[in-house]
Amino acid sequence: MAPKSAKKQHSAKNPHRNRQKPNANRGAAADPNGRHNPAKRPAQSGNMGHAGGKTAPKPPQNGYFIWGRHAVFAALANPDRRIQQLYITNDSNDALTAVITDLPEQRQAELPTPQLIDRSRLDHIGDAGEKAVHQGIAAAVWPLDPPHLDDFLADLAIHLGPDNNQEHAEPVRLLLLDQLSDPRNVGAIMRSARAFGVAALITTFRNAAEENGVLARTASGALDHVPLIRVVNLARAIEQLQDHGFLVAGLAGEGDVEVSALGTHQRLAIMLGAEGSGLRRLSRDHCDMLVRININEDAESLNVSNAAAIALYAASLYKPDANK
Amino acid sequence: MAPKSAKKQHSAKNPHRNRQKPNANRGAAADPNGRHNPAKRPAQSGNMGHAGGKTAPKPPQNGYFIWGRHAVFAALANPDRRIQQLYITNDSNDALTAVITDLPEQRQAELPTPQLIDRSRLDHIGDAGEKAVHQGIAAAVWPLDPPHLDDFLADLAIHLGPDNNQEHAEPVRLLLLDQLSDPRNVGAIMRSARAFGVAALITTFRNAAEENGVLARTASGALDHVPLIRVVNLARAIEQLQDHGFLVAGLAGEGDVEVSALGTHQRLAIMLGAEGSGLRRLSRDHCDMLVRININEDAESLNVSNAAAIALYAASLYKPDANK
Repeated sequence: MAPKSAKKQHSAKNPHRNRQKPNANRGAAADPNGRHNPAKRPAQSGNMGHAGGKTAPKPPQNGYFIWGRHAVFAALANPDRRIQQLYITNDSNDALTAVITDLPEQRQAELPTPQLIDRSRLDHIGDAGEKAVHQGIAAAVWPLDPPHLDDFLADLAIHLGPDNNQEHAEPVRLLLLDQLSDPRNVGAIMRSARAFGVAALITTFRNAAEENGVLARTASGALDHVPLIRVVNLARAIEQLQDHGFLVAGLAGEGDVEVSALGTHQRLAIMLGAEGSGLRRLSRDHCDMLVRININEDAESLNVSNAAAIALYAASLYKPDANK
Repeated sequence: MAPKSAKKQHSAKNPHRNRQKPNANRGAAADPNGRHNPAKRPAQSGNMGHAGGKTAPKPPQNGYFIWGRHAVFAALANPDRRIQQLYITNDSNDALTAVITDLPEQRQAELPTPQLIDRSRLDHIGDAGEKAVHQGIAAAVWPLDPPHLDDFLADLAIHLGPDNNQEHAEPVRLLLLDQLSDPRNVGAIMRSARAFGVAALITTFRNAAEENGVLARTASGALDHVPLIRVVNLARAIEQLQDHGFLVAGLAGEGDVEVSALGTHQRLAIMLGAEGSGLRRLSRDHCDMLVRININEDAESLNVSNAAAIALYAASLYKPDANK
């Protein structure tokens, strides 16, 4: 039950996916390094380029690298994702070809011709200095354009119809990230968000993790599936959500309600604070409720992505009749 | 309720903590670099040493660095943890002094005199090449001696008394890690294990994450709280657990029981497989049941530490009367 209903809700509530299609390529076209190959079938080794030299390739200006199969394949399939360059090792070429061949023709035409590259040259494309677990595939990309909260909420309303009737409607889950800056945590949260059919993540433009390779890798493809909305003011966003019928629940060790209570709300936004500092005062004050996960009193708090996973699981136990 | 009972169970079932105390110092004493200061009160800046030079300090032979406050303070408080050297920046010295002063005198006497160090010299003490988030504190340590499964199970039996009466007993939770090699995942799992009062983690000597700085940092102190038992053969360990009344539940996407079923078992061992490959065939075949977390059908699997957190949360909802 849960996966099916969550899946339907997810695709129905995420019209942003296709909306920006006409503009998907504008950044690449403007960039002098952008490579396009609209006429050719991609990824036949016969017409592949070969990235020369011995050093790691460079990401585009204002862009970054995505590596690893899940993450790169999700980027290829996302029509909103602008890709400057694709790097592939001999070993992984067949898998890439198979994925590209399955894409819509329009998307295939937008993609650059894959460049053959030596495995060792991909080892240090990450930001972190750490060796990247790239599985022989990487893409040089530009960040996604974050969707607007207003558009997202307007689409929700259209979906529900003019009487805004929520009864028996599929549950809608959002996550609010209050100054989470660690890309690994945000990536892991996105991965769980996708697994539990979260309609969107909402965070701030400032003091929040930026899109980068570590985030994309940790998200394991979810970065190109779950919209990441950016707002100027999180407290104002909370008010907007409340105006649209969302219950906003902050996750906090001192919460007065146990996390299982989340499973009784049809429109639910769960807010997560940074490791250590937790929710900011203003964010906390805007919540409708604070929920806690019961843990050992002498233990440190849970890692924020683990806490998020538990909260999403608890919320996934929603049954439309629970309030009746 | 849940945190309290879990806490009692945890300390009662972990007699390993104190058992090895007489030997706790043997490695340090044998090492020519081991520093001991049994007569002095530690961490007064007047009698502190100062680590000279500009390069990062080196870990002891067969040892590694632990960094960050939670992790280092937990190592200081663990009588089984052999510490070769303590490095502290001026900023963090007061916090360290406060922690050391609260330790038992015998433990204080075992600890090396803290060495003042420049913050920048701690930045690259991690294995990963990545800058370490050290909060001005690091310890050069040796790995813990892994407790034996036989001893752990014998102590469990003593605790229950000669009639092995489990009725109304506190729940006992174990985690089995089947070839999890990523230290970040294992560290995050340990952190959640501590939060949910898990009595021990069980993994293999080979093909499993070793104790290192990244694991310790991710575990946020839990590495020095939750016993990490190593066995030669995981299938044999499962049989031993079953002989001692444990239900062994493997977490797998194709499990035929929903994860909430875990909350009905008093003695429970949850087995987790590696990202990607999952549980090995032999491990899976030894399980009493396979449990799944319901997620979106088109999503990638959950990150293994997030899946573990959800399973531990589900198991924490145990009520002694659930089976009656």
